[in-house]
Amino acid sequence: MSKHADAVRSLCAAIPSFDRVAAEAAGRRQASLTKPPGSLGRLEELSVALAGMTGEQRPHVESSAIFTFAGDHGVVAEGVSAFPQSVSVQMVANFLAGGAAVNVLARLVGARVVIADLGLAGEVPGDTTELRALRVANGTANMAVGPAMTAGQMWQAVAAGAALVEEEAVRGLDLAGTGEMGIGNTTAATAILAACGGDDPAAITGPGTGLDRAGMGHKAEVIRRALEVNRPNPDCAWDVLQKVGGLEIAGLVGVILGCAARRIPCVIDGFISTSAALVATRACPASLQFLFAGHRSAEPGHDRMLELIGLRPILDLDMRLGEGTGAALAFTILRAAARTLDGMATFADAGVDDRL
Amino acid sequence: MSKHADAVRSLCAAIPSFDRVAAEAAGRRQASLTKPPGSLGRLEELSVALAGMTGEQRPHVESSAIFTFAGDHGVVAEGVSAFPQSVSVQMVANFLAGGAAVNVLARLVGARVVIADLGLAGEVPGDTTELRALRVANGTANMAVGPAMTAGQMWQAVAAGAALVEEEAVRGLDLAGTGEMGIGNTTAATAILAACGGDDPAAITGPGTGLDRAGMGHKAEVIRRALEVNRPNPDCAWDVLQKVGGLEIAGLVGVILGCAARRIPCVIDGFISTSAALVATRACPASLQFLFAGHRSAEPGHDRMLELIGLRPILDLDMRLGEGTGAALAFTILRAAARTLDGMATFADAGVDDRL
Repeated sequence: MSKHADAVRSLCAAIPSFDRVAAEAAGRRQASLTKPPGSLGRLEELSVALAGMTGEQRPHVESSAIFTFAGDHGVVAEGVSAFPQSVSVQMVANFLAGGAAVNVLARLVGARVVIADLGLAGEVPGDTTELRALRVANGTANMAVGPAMTAGQMWQAVAAGAALVEEEAVRGLDLAGTGEMGIGNTTAATAILAACGGDDPAAITGPGTGLDRAGMGHKAEVIRRALEVNRPNPDCAWDVLQKVGGLEIAGLVGVILGCAARRIPCVIDGFISTSAALVATRACPASLQFLFAGHRSAEPGHDRMLELIGLRPILDLDMRLGEGTGAALAFTILRAAARTLDGMATFADAGVDDRL
Repeated sequence: MSKHADAVRSLCAAIPSFDRVAAEAAGRRQASLTKPPGSLGRLEELSVALAGMTGEQRPHVESSAIFTFAGDHGVVAEGVSAFPQSVSVQMVANFLAGGAAVNVLARLVGARVVIADLGLAGEVPGDTTELRALRVANGTANMAVGPAMTAGQMWQAVAAGAALVEEEAVRGLDLAGTGEMGIGNTTAATAILAACGGDDPAAITGPGTGLDRAGMGHKAEVIRRALEVNRPNPDCAWDVLQKVGGLEIAGLVGVILGCAARRIPCVIDGFISTSAALVATRACPASLQFLFAGHRSAEPGHDRMLELIGLRPILDLDMRLGEGTGAALAFTILRAAARTLDGMATFADAGVDDRL
């Protein structure tokens, strides 16, 4: 077994358990704050979850980063996307220049964007000083004819994602988010879902960046073929990831595991990020306790994926862009949860009468 | 007719129309930005709405305030609340000290909180320097035995709310939110809904700050009695407001109309604020074009109210606190909408290829 595979397995073994003592203390504090019990709804529930994740009774989630990973997909040769593959590197250049949606939203919520090339097929134009060069291969192989990756490539990408969390943790990281860019990656994510959930590809395949009905039918057929050719083992998430996943998705699996091992709450974004969470939580169930689903994507398979994992999204804004945009917006709700828990006065502090 | 009634009627007449030219320009810009068309979902829709409201093709919604109005309710004599009336003034003191949920959330989103006494029954303890003293009466009369307000009191409260918007607009006000505090005010809001929508009180009465099933049955019965005694005219929203409303609710009607007259987008909070919006949009339908529903309240009648008005909430977090908490959180989503419209690169700017 490679050193990367060993590193990933050690990481899984190192994931601590949810801190019930901290969570219960947060719940008790919620009950003492100046509001009717339960009236902050999900903010209360999220604050308790943050306490259990971080192990802090009054958690702070101020220092935050979105990990936006890019990778290309050999399966685009089958004509599964509405945009050309050239867009992957061009959009990464746009991220580096600060002009994409994830940049604007990360600035709004005070998060940094960590942009990494896990496996683009071409060269990123312009200034790439800020790009984390973690390329494992020049895109995946075409999953419609064989495995998307070798096992070695997959472990390398997962380990690289986890190592980046370590690096960012040094700068301060109370809250992480996942995001991605890769033309063709809804095909990979849908294939992961079909493999893990046993779903008929036709029932869960969506438009991605904007396919029409005929395009979606073709994409579902390509996914069906990829499953037939590769026969991924539904009981082994690593096998599924290797055969029908993507390098950026593998990297995000590493981010999820790396965050869990360090008690850093991790907010997954939309459909593609959630496919990474599906792999991570199947391969390493303890990682689920450290995850939030940032939003409900408009991509049709997303609900099914969240149901398989057991996560309820925080926001529902009909978004389907990826990049980490939904995770960035959810940061504000999680901060609202932490800050109300920490900053509100109690009935006793404020001299407010309790219930009749 | 009083000068206050005249002022309110002039305000209604002064509401401009939605700027379709600005909205269409915003829609065109959305289509040119570096993302698949429509992939930012409701952010795109909200940005177009902001453009039409403000008349700016690239609107800015940075300077913001939550108007949190307080008032007491004579109907609490009927035992309709889980908390004693003393809590109204105590919570206003908590707002002034910065310890309530709305303070914490307003700080998070960079909004100021404008706290006004429209009709509390007692004295607010502590330092009241920052409290806007707009008290019209020491609480409303008990609607179960007669009208909650006189017409004069109602017009004075509405005019005071509108005047406060004028005052705050001078300090800079791109975006407004509504909020309230008043023990007993879900009873008033539910009565407004029953009167305007023709609903059976038993079908729409909720727990408010925390009534049990028996308490809710009693509250519905009190509302039924108030409607029988007062017979508010469902075709005249002002009559409904006067007979079964509240002074803080009347003040918020003024805020909504004042914002509309000045093209200031106004985010209504939960159940009580939405009852003010129901009155405002019935009395003055042009005001609807300037409203957003910040969130979906857990109070059971809220969906019905939003349906009557024709608004779809931005957030759904099971919150039911009021104060303006849901409006404050929605400010971030509206800012995200405005900032992505304004700050994202276009396909041309970024050198990104468009669709195949």
